[in-house]
Amino acid sequence: MSRTRVHNLFISLDGYAAGEYVTLDAPIGDARGLFAGFDGRVIHGIDRADADVTLDRALTTLWGQGVGAEIMGRRKFGPQTGEWPDGGWRGWWGDEPPFETPVFVMTHHPHPTLDFANGTSFRFVDGTAQEVLALAQEAAQGGDVRIGGGPTTVRQFLEADLIDFMHLAVVPITLGRGVSLWDGLAGVEERFTVESVASASGVTHQLWNRIARG
Amino acid sequence: MSRTRVHNLFISLDGYAAGEYVTLDAPIGDARGLFAGFDGRVIHGIDRADADVTLDRALTTLWGQGVGAEIMGRRKFGPQTGEWPDGGWRGWWGDEPPFETPVFVMTHHPHPTLDFANGTSFRFVDGTAQEVLALAQEAAQGGDVRIGGGPTTVRQFLEADLIDFMHLAVVPITLGRGVSLWDGLAGVEERFTVESVASASGVTHQLWNRIARG
Ligand SMILES: NC(=O)c1ccc[n+]([C@@H]2O[C@H](COP(=O)([O-])OP(=O)(O)OC[C@H]3O[C@@H](n4cnc5c(N)ncnc54)[C@H](OP(=O)(O)O)[C@@H]3O)[C@@H](O)[C@H]2O)c1
Ligand SMILES: NC(=O)c1ccc[n+]([C@@H]2O[C@H](COP(=O)([O-])OP(=O)(O)OC[C@H]3O[C@@H](n4cnc5c(N)ncnc54)[C@H](OP(=O)(O)O)[C@@H]3O)[C@@H](O)[C@H]2O)c1
Repeated sequence: MSRTRVHNLFISLDGYAAGEYVTLDAPIGDARGLFAGFDGRVIHGIDRADADVTLDRALTTLWGQGVGAEIMGRRKFGPQTGEWPDGGWRGWWGDEPPFETPVFVMTHHPHPTLDFANGTSFRFVDGTAQEVLALAQEAAQGGDVRIGGGPTTVRQFLEADLIDFMHLAVVPITLGRGVSLWDGLAGVEERFTVESVASASGVTHQLWNRIARG
Repeated sequence: MSRTRVHNLFISLDGYAAGEYVTLDAPIGDARGLFAGFDGRVIHGIDRADADVTLDRALTTLWGQGVGAEIMGRRKFGPQTGEWPDGGWRGWWGDEPPFETPVFVMTHHPHPTLDFANGTSFRFVDGTAQEVLALAQEAAQGGDVRIGGGPTTVRQFLEADLIDFMHLAVVPITLGRGVSLWDGLAGVEERFTVESVASASGVTHQLWNRIARG
């Protein structure tokens, strides 16, 4: 049974998971403080960083386990808006994007598929959360599907009740503005059990598991 | 740099990690309560069990990440003592032992190597912790080495100051007898930083990271 999972989604105390703007110089806009505690090196395993095995790093390693495809919003993929400009943008991640699976980029603007030698491909799709999830599940070949963000994208999957698991990292900062994860989602927690764990770093990790249906 | 790691070592409040006896019917002897919270299905990934992603399961998944060999004591491998009897014992784990790497079984009694189709092999060795670690590191081909227990074995590696990382799960039970992890190790914590995390299950997880040498 393929699950739909969110991992390492960092949110501020006031609920923001992205800044107001995204530019070439500022992938996370004015919300940089969100990622201060994130060690991206260990998404594929605790052994990838010569560093202490902390709770924060341990939970980060869940990211890729059994995942066969990702879905992201176009604003995670790049700073462009509207029609795609020429210019050969291939995402923030250089020649070796860390995904190593098909990645479905949600956008209203058509764009050819981008393929990378390490197994990553970016496929640009327009559709509802349900429709895009069906595509991703097929591509995942029995693996789970990760909803990679940003918040606008995760929110759509929460609204459609398609999320089985969500790992939030609540960072002890307040941003005051940005893209909120929670807009329009009052009461969403009723569909989940939530386990909260305080980390020595100040981050509170939350593990949201969808309560079994029916 | 190959690290030497301990994972999912369950100990009671009074420090025992194994019972007094091990028999064919009781692999963990009279210490069965230790493993009540352990979901062995997820050692290779959170996706391996159709079950909630809890903190306990998340930490369990560190077990195999980047590990290229294991070292265990013979009492983890089986209930026999003294010279190995005939009888074709190949360990508790059937045709597909979960290790999927070379496993070095420490014993004073020679025994031929056992090979399995899934990449597991049991190689029986006599030697000091240093000597056996050198063999395991070579077999791990750059991967980390896991010290798989039982407590008699882990204790030798702690005494020799060969452990870089240790994940203990302190279970809220008292056993009153058994094999202690801590015998002769007073003050061992001075060589480590220790992060303690309480789980909703009642288990306290401890992440011991060796303080950098020199
Ligand atoms: N806090 C974290 O842990 C985290 C995680 C991941 C990303 N981020 C950050 O989040 C920011 C991006 O998040 P965001 O919420 O602003 O945007 P986003 O979810 O990445 O992308 C939103 C855009 O995707 C397209 N889109 C979304 N749903 C669609 C649908 N159903 N059909 C067609 N197109 C659709 C739309 O673009 P068009 O209409 O223009 O095509 C929309 O403007 C970045 O700064 C990124 O770094 C943070
Ligand atoms: N609590 C946990 O999380 C956990 C984890 C793993 C295992 N266990 C349990 O722990 C129990 C076994 O632990 P244990 O501490 O009793 O025994 P152990 O460490 O598994 O094995 C000890 C035996 O290994 C051999 N040995 C150890 N060091 C040696 C050396 N340097 N050179 C040669 N041989 C050496 C000796 O056997 P010989 O002299 O007879 O050859 C010794 O009696 C089992 O019940 C197992 O289920 C618990």
